[in-house]
Amino acid sequence: MGSEFVRNDAGWLDVGRRARIGLPEAIYAPGKADADLVALIEASLASGEPTIVTRVERERAAELAERFGLRAYPSLTRRAPWVALAGNPVAPVGALEATVGVLAAGTADRAVAEEAVCVVETLGYRAHLVLDCGIAAIERSFRALEEVGDAAVLIVVAGFEGALASVVGGLARQPVIAVPTSTGYGASRGGETALWSMLATCAQGVVVAGIDNGFGAGCAAIRILRSRSASR
Amino acid sequence: MGSEFVRNDAGWLDVGRRARIGLPEAIYAPGKADADLVALIEASLASGEPTIVTRVERERAAELAERFGLRAYPSLTRRAPWVALAGNPVAPVGALEATVGVLAAGTADRAVAEEAVCVVETLGYRAHLVLDCGIAAIERSFRALEEVGDAAVLIVVAGFEGALASVVGGLARQPVIAVPTSTGYGASRGGETALWSMLATCAQGVVVAGIDNGFGAGCAAIRILRSRSASR
Amino acid sequence: MGSEFVRNDAGWLDVGRRARIGLPEAIYAPGKADADLVALIEASLASGEPTIVTRVERERAAELAERFGLRAYPSLTRRAPWVALAGNPVAPVGALEATVGVLAAGTADRAVAEEAVCVVETLGYRAHLVLDCGIAAIERSFRALEEVGDAAVLIVVAGFEGALASVVGGLARQPVIAVPTSTGYGASRGGETALWSMLATCAQGVVVAGIDNGFGAGCAAIRILRSRSASR
Amino acid sequence: MGSEFVRNDAGWLDVGRRARIGLPEAIYAPGKADADLVALIEASLASGEPTIVTRVERERAAELAERFGLRAYPSLTRRAPWVALAGNPVAPVGALEATVGVLAAGTADRAVAEEAVCVVETLGYRAHLVLDCGIAAIERSFRALEEVGDAAVLIVVAGFEGALASVVGGLARQPVIAVPTSTGYGASRGGETALWSMLATCAQGVVVAGIDNGFGAGCAAIRILRSRSASR
Amino acid sequence: MGSEFVRNDAGWLDVGRRARIGLPEAIYAPGKADADLVALIEASLASGEPTIVTRVERERAAELAERFGLRAYPSLTRRAPWVALAGNPVAPVGALEATVGVLAAGTADRAVAEEAVCVVETLGYRAHLVLDCGIAAIERSFRALEEVGDAAVLIVVAGFEGALASVVGGLARQPVIAVPTSTGYGASRGGETALWSMLATCAQGVVVAGIDNGFGAGCAAIRILRSRSASR
Amino acid sequence: MGSEFVRNDAGWLDVGRRARIGLPEAIYAPGKADADLVALIEASLASGEPTIVTRVERERAAELAERFGLRAYPSLTRRAPWVALAGNPVAPVGALEATVGVLAAGTADRAVAEEAVCVVETLGYRAHLVLDCGIAAIERSFRALEEVGDAAVLIVVAGFEGALASVVGGLARQPVIAVPTSTGYGASRGGETALWSMLATCAQGVVVAGIDNGFGAGCAAIRILRSRSASR
Amino acid sequence: MGSEFVRNDAGWLDVGRRARIGLPEAIYAPGKADADLVALIEASLASGEPTIVTRVERERAAELAERFGLRAYPSLTRRAPWVALAGNPVAPVGALEATVGVLAAGTADRAVAEEAVCVVETLGYRAHLVLDCGIAAIERSFRALEEVGDAAVLIVVAGFEGALASVVGGLARQPVIAVPTSTGYGASRGGETALWSMLATCAQGVVVAGIDNGFGAGCAAIRILRSRSASR
Amino acid sequence: MGSEFVRNDAGWLDVGRRARIGLPEAIYAPGKADADLVALIEASLASGEPTIVTRVERERAAELAERFGLRAYPSLTRRAPWVALAGNPVAPVGALEATVGVLAAGTADRAVAEEAVCVVETLGYRAHLVLDCGIAAIERSFRALEEVGDAAVLIVVAGFEGALASVVGGLARQPVIAVPTSTGYGASRGGETALWSMLATCAQGVVVAGIDNGFGAGCAAIRILRSRSASR
Repeated sequence: MGSEFVRNDAGWLDVGRRARIGLPEAIYAPGKADADLVALIEASLASGEPTIVTRVERERAAELAERFGLRAYPSLTRRAPWVALAGNPVAPVGALEATVGVLAAGTADRAVAEEAVCVVETLGYRAHLVLDCGIAAIERSFRALEEVGDAAVLIVVAGFEGALASVVGGLARQPVIAVPTSTGYGASRGGETALWSMLATCAQGVVVAGIDNGFGAGCAAIRILRSRSASR
Repeated sequence: MGSEFVRNDAGWLDVGRRARIGLPEAIYAPGKADADLVALIEASLASGEPTIVTRVERERAAELAERFGLRAYPSLTRRAPWVALAGNPVAPVGALEATVGVLAAGTADRAVAEEAVCVVETLGYRAHLVLDCGIAAIERSFRALEEVGDAAVLIVVAGFEGALASVVGGLARQPVIAVPTSTGYGASRGGETALWSMLATCAQGVVVAGIDNGFGAGCAAIRILRSRSASR
Repeated sequence: MGSEFVRNDAGWLDVGRRARIGLPEAIYAPGKADADLVALIEASLASGEPTIVTRVERERAAELAERFGLRAYPSLTRRAPWVALAGNPVAPVGALEATVGVLAAGTADRAVAEEAVCVVETLGYRAHLVLDCGIAAIERSFRALEEVGDAAVLIVVAGFEGALASVVGGLARQPVIAVPTSTGYGASRGGETALWSMLATCAQGVVVAGIDNGFGAGCAAIRILRSRSASR
Repeated sequence: MGSEFVRNDAGWLDVGRRARIGLPEAIYAPGKADADLVALIEASLASGEPTIVTRVERERAAELAERFGLRAYPSLTRRAPWVALAGNPVAPVGALEATVGVLAAGTADRAVAEEAVCVVETLGYRAHLVLDCGIAAIERSFRALEEVGDAAVLIVVAGFEGALASVVGGLARQPVIAVPTSTGYGASRGGETALWSMLATCAQGVVVAGIDNGFGAGCAAIRILRSRSASR
Repeated sequence: MGSEFVRNDAGWLDVGRRARIGLPEAIYAPGKADADLVALIEASLASGEPTIVTRVERERAAELAERFGLRAYPSLTRRAPWVALAGNPVAPVGALEATVGVLAAGTADRAVAEEAVCVVETLGYRAHLVLDCGIAAIERSFRALEEVGDAAVLIVVAGFEGALASVVGGLARQPVIAVPTSTGYGASRGGETALWSMLATCAQGVVVAGIDNGFGAGCAAIRILRSRSASR
Repeated sequence: MGSEFVRNDAGWLDVGRRARIGLPEAIYAPGKADADLVALIEASLASGEPTIVTRVERERAAELAERFGLRAYPSLTRRAPWVALAGNPVAPVGALEATVGVLAAGTADRAVAEEAVCVVETLGYRAHLVLDCGIAAIERSFRALEEVGDAAVLIVVAGFEGALASVVGGLARQPVIAVPTSTGYGASRGGETALWSMLATCAQGVVVAGIDNGFGAGCAAIRILRSRSASR
Repeated sequence: MGSEFVRNDAGWLDVGRRARIGLPEAIYAPGKADADLVALIEASLASGEPTIVTRVERERAAELAERFGLRAYPSLTRRAPWVALAGNPVAPVGALEATVGVLAAGTADRAVAEEAVCVVETLGYRAHLVLDCGIAAIERSFRALEEVGDAAVLIVVAGFEGALASVVGGLARQPVIAVPTSTGYGASRGGETALWSMLATCAQGVVVAGIDNGFGAGCAAIRILRSRSASR
Repeated sequence: MGSEFVRNDAGWLDVGRRARIGLPEAIYAPGKADADLVALIEASLASGEPTIVTRVERERAAELAERFGLRAYPSLTRRAPWVALAGNPVAPVGALEATVGVLAAGTADRAVAEEAVCVVETLGYRAHLVLDCGIAAIERSFRALEEVGDAAVLIVVAGFEGALASVVGGLARQPVIAVPTSTGYGASRGGETALWSMLATCAQGVVVAGIDNGFGAGCAAIRILRSRSASR
């Protein structure tokens, strides 16, 4: 367990995590004072490790992005409930098949989907995002599936009843990671409906991340992609 | 309110209900003593009204079916958690389009699906049942949808995540009644997952009956079919 | 599946949906940037399809209604948690019986009830709305039921314990679509109490839409009305 | 606090409770060994206090009823999930208006309704029970309400969506105690649907007892009846 | 059913309700436009019936109280999440025992407790309120119980785990109406913990109103008090 | 971490646990084959460590108790849903104050309460059990509290609404561990009502174990008692 | 979509599924009549596809295993709530790294863990199962993690609070699939506690399957392993 | 019961509580008017008892701290959702081992952790707080555990899945009090996930306080520490 830590008043950063498990520690913004957030970002950037800050409000994000030269997901020109920021990205992995396909049922699922994209790109892999391909118009879902046909891993992001995950799981050969979102109304209960639906899916071998947890889905995709590299 | 009642020690039958709303009162079997159940069936048959008994255990069903010449749904040769029994069916309605398509995602959903079929047939309409057409193999769902293309109303019966209702709702023009079932495992929670999923569906205008409530779905279909006749 | 799509940066509109299932795609406003919302409304209006925008905040609604000449449900002079906007309505259907009766238990249920009215009217049918007819004064419910006696389909909108749906279902011959609302206090749990109550109703053949989902109920009514026309 | 106790190996009986609050301690049968149950019944009968044993399985009930000369509710000739047994009843209260009306929506609610009747009668008041008067045929509910028009207190026992409590609460002047039951299917969730429905009722001043808790409702009725006597 | 209604654009007032069931219809403020609220209050006052408006925000309450000469519960000098307003009170009932004791576990439960007081006083009975007598210091609870010893009915208002209802139910002879409140933290879940606790109480014959529903508890008390008068 | 393990086909026993944390590993009986259970008990007894087997069905318990000379809690002459078995008890701790008071609200809570007693006695401390002291007769609770006045730690075991924990927590100086049980009906929901009630208690510093988890409460008491010894 | 189906009276087998997504359809035993189950197994074996039957009761499993020469997981000499049966396994994949490590927190999790093993082995990969390595003795967890150090994918099976998944996710580089089980007591709520715990884990990139869904976890592992092969 | 009370318009202070159970009554700030809060603090300080005010918003806290010379936890220079204020601390207890170790999984758990520290220090004991030691980097957890090795009692504060409590419970000999927090996202459900996880922990003898209830955990620690002193 060759872990290595940076401890300051704002927290206790696990900068050895990527050496240990292939994924860097991320900084969760909500509830942190500005000064603490800045201190943690500085420490993380200084360590040379890829730096990801999640769930940042738009105004704060604009300041931090400018101050530290971080990239925002989604772009700050979008209206989104929160953004992820990234710095110190690793060099891109060259292999052609190292792509993660991210399918989002609605445009309202964008912030979650792009959080996954942020992780994938910052760790050096490619992401291919297709938005608004939910099954209310299933032909649209089929077209989206074709667009990501070469991806090594699929992430399906959906709110409402989350049925896109079942349709994709029944048609695709790749690993499928489903992410329920808090999008929807009437009976979506903050994402719990999509979550249970994805867990109970009749499609085989679909696995699930927490509600709105694009970050976790991106990390799971990285684990799979790295295991592919490892196997060569 | 021209209601008319038969009151005996076993209950208080609303034999005027079909005159009032077009649907007969049904007899719910669980928890009723044999003598009471027999008394109620006799009173209902004597009234001349269509007689439907729901949720009958197999052994009881065999005895009652024989004694009163009732028809069982599903057939008593099947293994099912319960059956519906019917007597005094009304004369079949002749119109070609008077068919209800019943799509059941799995064979384990048969008892619920046939409860709906029981209501539809006993009230004089035709039912077209397709079993085992869930979306894990979506081509199978599409074929099933073609088989019921001429039906005036569709009933979709599904457990697990209930995604068949969303797929059907996105492709069919007809009224779509979704019935969640308690089938499934892992995360189906006795049908609640499918129920919420169907309520939160991204497909437009899909309405929902209670868990395992094939009887209610059949009644809703009759309301719609009768309204069609009424409109001519 | 003769679907046809309009894809732009703001989303992927399914403008062929009405040709496919008789109902147009609608635009859900929450979470969309102003620019995106405008772009989608423009694309939808340009396609010539009926255009419905749901859950619009009052201020935004006033601007959009003026800019695009859309109609607001409820009227913008009312205080409502949200409004629906409609443009490109189809020509009214002439048949006398083509009316949807909408019964709302309380005035606080108005926004949900009018969302259903919006769908019905924009698709060319008539809606007859009766407000404040809940069963605490059951005579009032009976009077309301008489007022909509000629409607082909009934939509019952209610919060609290939703008992109006049971009373209507026990007295009316028409198809009955129940819509639970998040109205109420004490034990209404954001509409879940009314939802479960409506699903468990002892009245036969009542079907249910999601919480506050007037849009879905309106669509279901259209499916039924169209099926009537189809049958002629 | 003039309480007085009988303590033995089987428990610690509060035989002074009726002197203190007007209601005797009752013996809850489930989970008690036969010997312990017998010991407690003997001690209670010996104290001269009214003795009520609740939730007794049928076979056990038959033995105990015979051995101690107890009365069973419902009668042991009925099929019921459990029965209540009573001994040492107090002398009947003479006043004409001292009646509790008990309205049960379905016959399946009988065991709960008769548990309330057991308490009322054993404490010396009259009970008037009307079964099977749920609102699916609301005329039946109105007739039942007339039958209990002279009662001083009403107990409404209902499963499914429990709407009978709302209808009664909107029409009756008396105190109304609602008891949800675990009867029903589809979406009754062991009585929780009726419970929440009764708590959220739009009818004013309806109060609620626990699920299947006919005993508690009977005790609440006694508190009210006694307060009437006390006021004279 | 001698009901009588006032119907205007703002609603459909049941002004005959007190003649029917002894309790007037109340006006629920949330979600109502100012103009509508004013119109309803005017109509109600004009009918001569006692007029109660519930859940009014403080600023609105101050305006309305002044404009119509209504009394506020709690007094507007208090900080409370909402207030009830009352006008047209009926003449006080003279009988000495016509008092409702209202016990509130904490001062934070005041708004709920005073909503009950508002109903009781506006309908002509006396209320005796004791605040802050929860069982963490049980001696305090005993003293409070003594203070309301002569009351004909007890209302117990409590959040957290609601144990005050159990303690009172075990010691008092009167009818006991328990009202759970959304007060508390850690595990009170918006009042559900107290609600279930009160429903499951080991004390006999305690009945329960909805969460924060002081209005309902007050109405239930009136039903009981009126039944006492009726019996004389 | 000087842990030491015994690994065989039936499991992987942590026989060094008591050296590490002062508590031995226990054997959970449900779901284990007879042969496996016997093998684990033999291995545990052979290690010389105190041996506790929890949740054993009565018949199995009788056999195992005889075969291995284990002590049963509760005694096998009692009717209980399950028993705990113990062998290799440690020598009794002499200090006078080393007693755990166990208060159980009802006799139906005995099996849970005695599971705690089993742990306490097997680890060498004294337990003082008082049954049937729930607050429906609060004088009984006060007497029970006096009986355990000298105990160093209190365990309160209660189902229904669990209010005994609040009353004890408000009166006792000792550490109070509350254990909710699945006892009760009406609204106890398998112990969740008591659990939430205990977590939300207004009494200060009461901590909670899982539902029916007398074993865990006993272990927590041991941790506290040992810390007392450690402090000397 | 080159799907191919076998349709008979017992169901509609998707025998082309493995060609489509790399995983064969499986047969879920519960609720199926013996004759239907036999017919489906015969059809599946006849198609030449790997045949997996899940959730078979022990007695039925013994008969079927003997009749069709199927292999049982767990071995029929074990006591387990259900077993999986397998026939027509594919030829083993030779590559050294093609191993799935399966870590089960307790021996009671065996049936779920072996269901995953069944899928993995039947599809030609190796499985390495370590039982009873939960974190109550964390040294045991570390040893288990070393034993599966060379595996390409890890499956973590745990009930109770499911913390093993968090510990493994924080230390291992591989893809980690967590499977909550219905094992545990006190507060495990049929597996929901472990499920939510695994979804909320602070460890990065852990994904989750449904409760007790070893089958789904096995399928997800195959998707990952096949994607590795595909990448070469 | 030598209790003593101060009753004023703002409440009914139990100033005799510390004499009775060793813990002072605390003042819960939310929902209290400024004037009432000031009156209660004045009364409490005047009584000479240790005075703790919980859940104070930052601005109010700054004013009150200055006005009454109270100490804030956390320091007012921190960003925290709320703070606790303390005055009249008791003299420090001298014994070396009288320390409570407080381990918080993340920095976002600080407000809860410091609420516990506030209680401990105000009652005269020492607290040793270690922040940000969750198990995602388990080496960090082990180091934190070493830092508090001499503490007499451990409090573990964690959100997300709360696994730190299980790890600590498996390694530490001391009493362990777990406090779930509402920190986390994806599936933490306002702290319920951590709460259930801690209740279901496989570690022995871990007890649980309510969500975010650092105050309660601090009180429980004091009960334990005092019992240690008492035993000497």
